[in-house]
Amino acid sequence: MQPRVTDETQAPDDAQPAPSAIWGGRFASGPSAVMEAINASIGFDKRLYRQDIAGSRAHAAMLVAVGLLTEADGQAIDQGLARILTEIDSGVFPFSTRLEDIHMNVETRLKDLIGEAAGRLHTARSRNDQVATDFRLWIRDAIDFVDGALATLQHTLIDRAEEYAATVMPGFTHLQTAQPVTLGHHLLAYVEMLGRDRGRFADARARLNECPLGSAALAGTGFPIDRFMTAQALGFDRPCANSLDGVSDRDFALEYLAAASVCAIHLSRLAEELVVWTSAQFAFVRLPDAYSTGSSIMPQKRNPDAAELVRAKAGRVIGALNSLLVVMKGLPLAYSKDMQDDKEPVFEATDTLELCLAAMTGMIAHMTADPVRLRAAAGQGFTTATDLADWLVRRLGTPFRDAHAVAGRLVRLAETRGVGLEELSLAEMQTIEPRLTEEAAAVLSVDASVQARTSYGGTAPERVRAACQAARERFARPAP
Amino acid sequence: MQPRVTDETQAPDDAQPAPSAIWGGRFASGPSAVMEAINASIGFDKRLYRQDIAGSRAHAAMLVAVGLLTEADGQAIDQGLARILTEIDSGVFPFSTRLEDIHMNVETRLKDLIGEAAGRLHTARSRNDQVATDFRLWIRDAIDFVDGALATLQHTLIDRAEEYAATVMPGFTHLQTAQPVTLGHHLLAYVEMLGRDRGRFADARARLNECPLGSAALAGTGFPIDRFMTAQALGFDRPCANSLDGVSDRDFALEYLAAASVCAIHLSRLAEELVVWTSAQFAFVRLPDAYSTGSSIMPQKRNPDAAELVRAKAGRVIGALNSLLVVMKGLPLAYSKDMQDDKEPVFEATDTLELCLAAMTGMIAHMTADPVRLRAAAGQGFTTATDLADWLVRRLGTPFRDAHAVAGRLVRLAETRGVGLEELSLAEMQTIEPRLTEEAAAVLSVDASVQARTSYGGTAPERVRAACQAARERFARPAP
Amino acid sequence: MQPRVTDETQAPDDAQPAPSAIWGGRFASGPSAVMEAINASIGFDKRLYRQDIAGSRAHAAMLVAVGLLTEADGQAIDQGLARILTEIDSGVFPFSTRLEDIHMNVETRLKDLIGEAAGRLHTARSRNDQVATDFRLWIRDAIDFVDGALATLQHTLIDRAEEYAATVMPGFTHLQTAQPVTLGHHLLAYVEMLGRDRGRFADARARLNECPLGSAALAGTGFPIDRFMTAQALGFDRPCANSLDGVSDRDFALEYLAAASVCAIHLSRLAEELVVWTSAQFAFVRLPDAYSTGSSIMPQKRNPDAAELVRAKAGRVIGALNSLLVVMKGLPLAYSKDMQDDKEPVFEATDTLELCLAAMTGMIAHMTADPVRLRAAAGQGFTTATDLADWLVRRLGTPFRDAHAVAGRLVRLAETRGVGLEELSLAEMQTIEPRLTEEAAAVLSVDASVQARTSYGGTAPERVRAACQAARERFARPAP
Amino acid sequence: MQPRVTDETQAPDDAQPAPSAIWGGRFASGPSAVMEAINASIGFDKRLYRQDIAGSRAHAAMLVAVGLLTEADGQAIDQGLARILTEIDSGVFPFSTRLEDIHMNVETRLKDLIGEAAGRLHTARSRNDQVATDFRLWIRDAIDFVDGALATLQHTLIDRAEEYAATVMPGFTHLQTAQPVTLGHHLLAYVEMLGRDRGRFADARARLNECPLGSAALAGTGFPIDRFMTAQALGFDRPCANSLDGVSDRDFALEYLAAASVCAIHLSRLAEELVVWTSAQFAFVRLPDAYSTGSSIMPQKRNPDAAELVRAKAGRVIGALNSLLVVMKGLPLAYSKDMQDDKEPVFEATDTLELCLAAMTGMIAHMTADPVRLRAAAGQGFTTATDLADWLVRRLGTPFRDAHAVAGRLVRLAETRGVGLEELSLAEMQTIEPRLTEEAAAVLSVDASVQARTSYGGTAPERVRAACQAARERFARPAP
Repeated sequence: MQPRVTDETQAPDDAQPAPSAIWGGRFASGPSAVMEAINASIGFDKRLYRQDIAGSRAHAAMLVAVGLLTEADGQAIDQGLARILTEIDSGVFPFSTRLEDIHMNVETRLKDLIGEAAGRLHTARSRNDQVATDFRLWIRDAIDFVDGALATLQHTLIDRAEEYAATVMPGFTHLQTAQPVTLGHHLLAYVEMLGRDRGRFADARARLNECPLGSAALAGTGFPIDRFMTAQALGFDRPCANSLDGVSDRDFALEYLAAASVCAIHLSRLAEELVVWTSAQFAFVRLPDAYSTGSSIMPQKRNPDAAELVRAKAGRVIGALNSLLVVMKGLPLAYSKDMQDDKEPVFEATDTLELCLAAMTGMIAHMTADPVRLRAAAGQGFTTATDLADWLVRRLGTPFRDAHAVAGRLVRLAETRGVGLEELSLAEMQTIEPRLTEEAAAVLSVDASVQARTSYGGTAPERVRAACQAARERFARPAP
Repeated sequence: MQPRVTDETQAPDDAQPAPSAIWGGRFASGPSAVMEAINASIGFDKRLYRQDIAGSRAHAAMLVAVGLLTEADGQAIDQGLARILTEIDSGVFPFSTRLEDIHMNVETRLKDLIGEAAGRLHTARSRNDQVATDFRLWIRDAIDFVDGALATLQHTLIDRAEEYAATVMPGFTHLQTAQPVTLGHHLLAYVEMLGRDRGRFADARARLNECPLGSAALAGTGFPIDRFMTAQALGFDRPCANSLDGVSDRDFALEYLAAASVCAIHLSRLAEELVVWTSAQFAFVRLPDAYSTGSSIMPQKRNPDAAELVRAKAGRVIGALNSLLVVMKGLPLAYSKDMQDDKEPVFEATDTLELCLAAMTGMIAHMTADPVRLRAAAGQGFTTATDLADWLVRRLGTPFRDAHAVAGRLVRLAETRGVGLEELSLAEMQTIEPRLTEEAAAVLSVDASVQARTSYGGTAPERVRAACQAARERFARPAP
Repeated sequence: MQPRVTDETQAPDDAQPAPSAIWGGRFASGPSAVMEAINASIGFDKRLYRQDIAGSRAHAAMLVAVGLLTEADGQAIDQGLARILTEIDSGVFPFSTRLEDIHMNVETRLKDLIGEAAGRLHTARSRNDQVATDFRLWIRDAIDFVDGALATLQHTLIDRAEEYAATVMPGFTHLQTAQPVTLGHHLLAYVEMLGRDRGRFADARARLNECPLGSAALAGTGFPIDRFMTAQALGFDRPCANSLDGVSDRDFALEYLAAASVCAIHLSRLAEELVVWTSAQFAFVRLPDAYSTGSSIMPQKRNPDAAELVRAKAGRVIGALNSLLVVMKGLPLAYSKDMQDDKEPVFEATDTLELCLAAMTGMIAHMTADPVRLRAAAGQGFTTATDLADWLVRRLGTPFRDAHAVAGRLVRLAETRGVGLEELSLAEMQTIEPRLTEEAAAVLSVDASVQARTSYGGTAPERVRAACQAARERFARPAP
Repeated sequence: MQPRVTDETQAPDDAQPAPSAIWGGRFASGPSAVMEAINASIGFDKRLYRQDIAGSRAHAAMLVAVGLLTEADGQAIDQGLARILTEIDSGVFPFSTRLEDIHMNVETRLKDLIGEAAGRLHTARSRNDQVATDFRLWIRDAIDFVDGALATLQHTLIDRAEEYAATVMPGFTHLQTAQPVTLGHHLLAYVEMLGRDRGRFADARARLNECPLGSAALAGTGFPIDRFMTAQALGFDRPCANSLDGVSDRDFALEYLAAASVCAIHLSRLAEELVVWTSAQFAFVRLPDAYSTGSSIMPQKRNPDAAELVRAKAGRVIGALNSLLVVMKGLPLAYSKDMQDDKEPVFEATDTLELCLAAMTGMIAHMTADPVRLRAAAGQGFTTATDLADWLVRRLGTPFRDAHAVAGRLVRLAETRGVGLEELSLAEMQTIEPRLTEEAAAVLSVDASVQARTSYGGTAPERVRAACQAARERFARPAP
């Protein structure tokens, strides 16, 4: 069945007057122009051409194998489709909006090229299962590309993390300096996030990898087709188990967009940090020229445009997810035309995410940190007071809450004196807790602080270097 | 100040290697290609060209008036801009991605055309106030167009409502038949909704109609400009009262997208009704051929594609709103590059809404209702039982809740007998309530039911006709 | 008609077994517990009690006026309702989940109190128009409260702006120092944003102020009611013009949530600035103790918790808007039970917004700025270079773009010399542009820069003071 | 470190005046009431108490094992915590808003119960890693419950699908009758969707199952703790690999909400079908009394309230997802107070989803279909025309597109004659295609049509029965 075939007798009636002159400027030719504008998808679904042709070739090969198509017809179809692929690849294919979508554009061209045999290709198939197959294949390809881009960014982060494994910087809570950490440790946090993003994409890929082909319009078919053969030919793990489900759900696109949204959130966080860190007040890092813009009048000015745009573009990806959720809400089975609006959000989110990953990779790869400023900032605000409290707990057996009270008094003493904690003399410190020793005083430097945090996952440089090494092994690299 | 001007010395460094070979296929020329792809906005902001040129002409005229520009330079600029407008209108303007955005494309071309004087146009101006002005003007134009389209749809609905003022149909609650109404009454409900939509757009228009020009980069300017003059020339009510606010808020775009979202929701509801009403089970209305698609094999099949797409496209508009909300969340003042992502959601939502309004207008204008099926459906399910209860209250003074109990017993009697309420004899009815009269029996027809509901805003045909007349007066027609 | 009345014969069947043992823990009593949990709204719609009682009193008074209710019954109803109001106000009213919603709770109690006459109150009314009326009244009250809170925050900002009218600080673009502004000017930007927020709420209030009462279930009524009388009694401008529309749209709630979302975005931006400004690196302002939290160990630590929470809570408000948009998408007329899910998002958004406004008002009222740090930061980064370029344009007639080039060369000279622009001697400056004078040198201080920007809406202290004065007049104060 | 500890000296200052009298009604006691209202989380995070106590017991046991706590103190802590669990379970625990959150409520109570030793529990821990651990544990439990509920619904659907395996009904595209399918086949489509939902939840569970405990405030700790021991004790697969990531990401909650949103979309689709199918016009199924509401006046009326509410509640779940996405956008590392707003969306989405699953399970378990109406509807609209076309392709080798043309002419003939396709005589059919045989005529019944569609995943009753059997094996049952 061909629910969306508009044949001549049902063609939009050009003779009808436009509903109102107001549309004149935009839809001059009346209702048919409006309908074509809202109904035709070729403007965007042409991006599915590789997948559509691959699907048709697999379908034709199967039809030959089960005897529904002669070898000769099968060969003609295959060669015709191969030629169409070349035509589109090279930009000479004559796309037609009148033919509505990629499927009819390809099939019509095939008829031009090979004649009547083209009419046999659509046996035991419908545009409903065809588009569902194409779209899954497209998203699968997108996931593979995004995974590579994520791997590239991860390994770029790991490389920089190793370089900065011992570079002390302030660790923030509430954007207030809390405890010293290392820049390498900070960068590795994003390696973890991106690793989970890759996991989400991989899970989405595994779940969508069932082939709708053979679901036909919605009910399956009476032709003796071999769905396992087409599924295998197209790299699917198996055919979809229910034909109605195969043509009428788009949860695979929703899951993909959700994974993309979470990933975009992660990137927006790192982007925000780059924007804050490159402010004159922080001046922690300098972004590469290639990803900044300047001012013709203030040559030293370096606006973090790329970082701001990466931060913003989370909006676009989340908007795409939201858009498709609204489309699918409350939609009865099986195919409804509403589902034609599934593609643009996916295309936009994919383009956006790829661009953000490229820009972020470039920024991370070529940013330079200022270790002197970072170290100075790490020491501000008595950030090692907790280290002293921990020493009291560990060495003197002081209960945690009491140890904190002692450390607090020392901080107040230093504050009153206008010095850093590490600048107090041992004698001064002993006025507050007589049992304090030189060992206690030694925990007060930012270097001692980070070196001490050797618990698994902690910020000690040796831990960070080990974590870099482990991350290289845990996270697959991008394919060469 | 020109915070986003990338001059030659800060140009992205093409010599840097691409961060990874993976981008090779897409960003072959390395970081500069990535940066250009994420940073340049000319691909979409060229849609602002009319507004950008109008803004520049108004600015130049003001500079002349206050003595910051000579008459001669002013004239050269004005003529140059007029020519650029013609060039873009006629499709011969050479847009360049390297020039990033519409502002630099126009200014650079102006320099080609008139030489050095072009360099004086940007006096007392920045791209920050320029783009904010352009974008407000664009949305103002969009609102004017959408208002006309809404007016057209309203008056189309009113025309059809008048035609169907006495056409009885079931009124639904929970998609269950509840009480008879008329189709005209039902259509007028949407006239009200669309009227409020127009109100929302009009309020958004009034609120955005303040001119940012003269805010300069963010702080205002020391040049003795006349902001009231440019504001007036561009049809604004007044200049923005705070320069920081003028360049750094986009609430006008959010308000516009919110109005568009609510309007899209209204259209999705009418679209859903068209989809349900054209099902074989309802068969209440038939959509015009021009907005349906058929099947080559089932010639009687008429898929309500346009209605389904209008229903779906609420997703796209809501997605656009959501997208910009996320972009703006937590953005510090003043201009941040994030705000470059304000335009695409607005453009997409506008295109979508205009298309949906055109399609819906066409469907409503040319749909045909089936009065026989509508009337039959209106009578199913004892829908006039409440009329009988009301009669008991009105004529016999029965308390409302007791009257309902009596009516309920009559329904059960009719149900047991397998007939409609109006088919019970008076004698039968009197076995349940002896005081029932012929007058009571007469309220049981669907026509009597709708005719009785004469309260203001009610479904009585006379009311509906009066409401049509009032609506024609209350709601401005589209401009001719 | 009472579409949602569950009377005894249709009561959920407790005898049916639970669908599965899994629900045992949560819905021990089987289907009826599930249904009660999903169906009953009294848990949240009890918040409508004032509005519900006010609506019923107005309805009863009208029924008396048109002769549908005796004076005596009318009086009994009115006194009964007054007593119920007191009972609920004082917390002694016995709410019952079995009675589902606020309407049935009140009506049932009324019957307990006054007997049979209670059964006459529901004449010519339905829960459909009743709840629509209650909800509009509730949102109207919420708008009035929010408007007062916004006015309070505006006037708090104006007070602080006047105090800081001449306090120089860096104006940012891209979070990079761009030009000097004053803190007063910066704060006034938010006064403008909040002013538009108030405008949006006011417009929403005006648009929703039509009374659905008398729409009955959906079709209007045959009783000779006076809808204008009830509308007026409840402070509405007029009755809704279409009964179907009156009971089945919720665009007023969507518009309210959209206004709340834009307002929450504005607050999130100011909150972000407070978080950034209170970081050790910026240290521009100090938040009041009452809105910060500290650390028992680092007594100097002052976390901007309230600011962070205000920033975060934009998410909740936007989520509420999104939620109701999804609910309403594609819903056919007239009343559907889906619409019961309109209230919780509105209640949550309102509570959230009120809390955010209170917290932000407290923070703004009691924050203290550090003028020394602000001024120092304002001078970093050659922020007055544009002032010099403007001087060249104004005094020497240099074209804007050329003037920028000259200023750029001066900046590079200062940068090379390691000094600020204002520290260059005139002689040094003249090596780049011989026509520079002492007057030119004088524009280079941050004070001169802000004082120069006297254009309307600009940052000059005199402008800011005038703007404070004007704002006090433009924006109504909160009611005392 | 305890960034959120508010000790006495930093306590909100009650002496400060309220920012404005307007708050008087709501925040009578001034700033501290506002701050408490916005800052305290105990109102909702008390739901984490089981997880919080379990986490503390595991932490204490580990502290004993590594020698940081004496056996005696460890035992006192464990017994104290056990008693607190009992107190909360039994509703006697004295929750205090002044103590802000669940962690401080529990710890303070522990001190009451066991004295000084309580102060040692917080060694090597922070509220930052504590809450991250609690929340992961809570979501893990929620996933386990939801998985059971989904399994119950799946197996309920499978049972009903088997019962209706051969019950012919119309298969819809565009809500237009397209081809006959069976009701069993239709129900199984949802079994597939829910199966993927379970997969998404399972993947989310596996990915979140890393233990943040030991990340401390953000940097890890210098105490010689054993993170693998606590991870194992709490059923985690391993500790988080990076302490900053452990305390500052909430992607696990986003992923959970995304899975819940897709699941809610699936339920909304089935709910929409139930609403449409129970309309008088469709009358395909009847919902159980327990999940419908009636009318006191129209006893036959059966409103599908539960189905409408399930449809609506997709909005709430999607709103929750959206809400948390907005919260997390652009948030710098590590812990920010914004993240406190992660819990309410998760709690609400969980409650909503559980309720929807319970209601849907009840509706599916007890709905009754009307096979006679379903079969009649399946035959309307020449739905077997494609079967005839397929016969032409299969038996006569007619190309697919030509076969469709022949079938189309037969449909037009039947339409003209006013009969169904299967009512045409063979002779009549042969006037259009002489090669048609009795075998061809036999494919025209709806039963023949569904029986023919035996391709894998197709609608043939034998296929449906096999699919039921396979589904029972593929999808784990709920635990008893």
